[in-house]
Amino acid sequence: MAAQATETEHEDEDYTLDPELVDHVVAAAESGDAAALRGLLEPLHAADIADLLEQVGAAQRQEILHLWGDEIDGEVLSELDESIREEVISALPRDVLAGAVRELDSDDVVDLIEDLEEPQQEAILGALDVSDRAAVEQSLTWPEYSAGRLMQREVVTAPEHWTVGDAVDFLGRDHELPDQFYHVILVDAAHHPVGYVTLGKLLSSRRATPLMQITEDSFRTISARQEEGDVAYAFNQYHLISAPVVDDSGRLVGVITIDDAMAVLDEEHEEDMLRLAGVNDESHVSDGPLTTAKQRLPWLVINLCTASLSAIVISQFENTIARLVALASLMPIVASTGGIAGTQSLAVAVRALAARDLNSSNAKRVVRRELLAGMLNGISLAIILGSAGALLFHDFRLGLVLGMAMIANQIVAALGGVLVPLTLDRMGLDPALASGTFVTTLTDVMGFFAFLGLATVILL
Amino acid sequence: MAAQATETEHEDEDYTLDPELVDHVVAAAESGDAAALRGLLEPLHAADIADLLEQVGAAQRQEILHLWGDEIDGEVLSELDESIREEVISALPRDVLAGAVRELDSDDVVDLIEDLEEPQQEAILGALDVSDRAAVEQSLTWPEYSAGRLMQREVVTAPEHWTVGDAVDFLGRDHELPDQFYHVILVDAAHHPVGYVTLGKLLSSRRATPLMQITEDSFRTISARQEEGDVAYAFNQYHLISAPVVDDSGRLVGVITIDDAMAVLDEEHEEDMLRLAGVNDESHVSDGPLTTAKQRLPWLVINLCTASLSAIVISQFENTIARLVALASLMPIVASTGGIAGTQSLAVAVRALAARDLNSSNAKRVVRRELLAGMLNGISLAIILGSAGALLFHDFRLGLVLGMAMIANQIVAALGGVLVPLTLDRMGLDPALASGTFVTTLTDVMGFFAFLGLATVILL
Repeated sequence: MAAQATETEHEDEDYTLDPELVDHVVAAAESGDAAALRGLLEPLHAADIADLLEQVGAAQRQEILHLWGDEIDGEVLSELDESIREEVISALPRDVLAGAVRELDSDDVVDLIEDLEEPQQEAILGALDVSDRAAVEQSLTWPEYSAGRLMQREVVTAPEHWTVGDAVDFLGRDHELPDQFYHVILVDAAHHPVGYVTLGKLLSSRRATPLMQITEDSFRTISARQEEGDVAYAFNQYHLISAPVVDDSGRLVGVITIDDAMAVLDEEHEEDMLRLAGVNDESHVSDGPLTTAKQRLPWLVINLCTASLSAIVISQFENTIARLVALASLMPIVASTGGIAGTQSLAVAVRALAARDLNSSNAKRVVRRELLAGMLNGISLAIILGSAGALLFHDFRLGLVLGMAMIANQIVAALGGVLVPLTLDRMGLDPALASGTFVTTLTDVMGFFAFLGLATVILL
Repeated sequence: MAAQATETEHEDEDYTLDPELVDHVVAAAESGDAAALRGLLEPLHAADIADLLEQVGAAQRQEILHLWGDEIDGEVLSELDESIREEVISALPRDVLAGAVRELDSDDVVDLIEDLEEPQQEAILGALDVSDRAAVEQSLTWPEYSAGRLMQREVVTAPEHWTVGDAVDFLGRDHELPDQFYHVILVDAAHHPVGYVTLGKLLSSRRATPLMQITEDSFRTISARQEEGDVAYAFNQYHLISAPVVDDSGRLVGVITIDDAMAVLDEEHEEDMLRLAGVNDESHVSDGPLTTAKQRLPWLVINLCTASLSAIVISQFENTIARLVALASLMPIVASTGGIAGTQSLAVAVRALAARDLNSSNAKRVVRRELLAGMLNGISLAIILGSAGALLFHDFRLGLVLGMAMIANQIVAALGGVLVPLTLDRMGLDPALASGTFVTTLTDVMGFFAFLGLATVILL
């Protein structure tokens, strides 16, 4: 039914929230019309309600929560950006919060509370059943950003000696099964996972078939201590749908499903992109101007210092510039083109490191390639800039200086773009960690130095 | 069993290919030891073999294929980067290729051949059964990068009036079921999907239960014409595991599973990151220096032209610089700090657009926030730079010029960083499309103009 009703919209559907809907919601909230608000929000997916709450202003958000907060469910809370989660939770009456949280799986509760302040954490934990609370508290003993925090503890297992019939009968009995599960995990007597069977195989195999005969090749376990970024990579690389998580002694403690891994992959990408640009990865679209300014100031101040290096380099050549003031106009060209080349090389290297495509077995070849590519592009750009300079200023030697400086700086840019992230990576740091500032400082300093230095030697 | 054997390694496991293993493979290939090569590659996952082939040099790749190519399976081909896929396929004997391709699902065959040249496409299509070939050819009629290309045509459906028992019996009979499926899709008489049931629900419900009573809320259909990037977003946003794909008349034509959506999400991110840096998104770690240089040259040449704008601006102030040559050293500081601020604002905006967090309902607020944040950081930086300049050069007016230029350029940077991608987006273009070059040109030109202009008015 849904299919027919909406099919014509689907073609252009890009899942952006309808701005008109947002306007209506805001209007309903501002006029205090609780019924209209409920009618507008009720049909929306929890993830879309969360997005809407992030996208309206803080005052409007408070009005919406005031009128509609009683209806909020756990899913909405778990979809909210960290930046406003605390604010929303504080705005909810304690019993509403308790009701909302009790609907969630253990992994979602962990995700919800891990960054909250102590009193808010307590309020949520206090709302849970004893056994759910124990599950959440146990998950919280694993390190932040680990598989142990990401996994859900609700697992469907079967002893390794069972047949298909045993498993089907077991699942058919009245249990509380997890909302979503894709495999039955086979465990030995010590509760070590030894394989898994898809539900599809279970449904299509004969009852007498031993489960161990129909396990999947894709089976691999994940340590609860493993970093969530590596877990996300493994899911993407090996096309996993779910994977059992084991503790230090190899015993099954939970399961991670691909939807959680996909969310982590998405966050990791966001982090890389923002860090590369020198932005704190905690930044959100709902942040106010002051928060935004604070998040960005540190790298700006660092850049102010590194830019002073360029100024010092240039000041060494003040005599040269005083004698030929046209140099002052030309010098940013070499520096700026170097900055772009460095950024290109950097983006490729950071991405390749994140995708595990760049590692010690091919690092040498990639560095050599960057060197050669930098040299080739340096030559092409040198020919263009050098001839233009020589013609415009009727000075062959000026063209030569421009061209030579360009080649030198392109090589430095290409090498810097790959060596800076490789070095950070080898030091165990995030290769995206503001590599941008390092590399553009390098290309600025080198660009000014090469151009003014060569000009001093050749032109004066 | 696998669990116990490898559990100790898991903790540090980041899934990078072991460089020693790569060395051994290369050594075996170079010494022509086919048995050793087979022994080394046999235990690897297809995705890891593909990565290995990408990471070794071209000559080594040919040797490996020469010795081991007969054993290659379809999965390895489908995991290969486009950049070397053609090369690998050409190196394989026709019958090996045919055997490898016949193992693949229709969506993987489509992905494999869509970018190949005509004769290679024919060779692969010719190897398929008549019905598989028809399925692949039909998928190829959907636009590139559409859901129709991404979906697999193997679907498990049930009439909407069936009970759990009907479905279980149907699945238990000897069919060819897809390797991976997570839902039974319910269809009406016209083959329109009307809901779906998870296999877990099927296994845990009573036989007499009508399927329509246990359908999932998450159900939504996807048009075959929808862009794959939007599909990936929908999977991530709504935690979908699989989704039915419908043609223009709403009839079920295939299904997309989350692992394919996750791969698309990953590619889209790569594209954004590389485009933002002005790199052709077809670039790969296996590309040679010449290919690399060619991919990057266009934006470098464009930057050469835009950088000339800065040069022209500066040249208008040559008299000013000639009278106070220290200005030449100081002018890059304002421009460079502006470049960083612009890049920060840009990265946040491009990311927010990709995540559908920035749209017409909050664009105004975000632009206002950027304006205010730029002003705030401009003031902070102006105080630091202005005082430093005034003290070092014993000239209060020089400090004033530095500070005022900094504030102006920070505001331009923050605004440019958000307005450039918003404008590109509204024009229907990719907001990441080399916005970096636009924004840094803007901050360079503005930085030089504001600084030198103010200096001319205030200092001379």
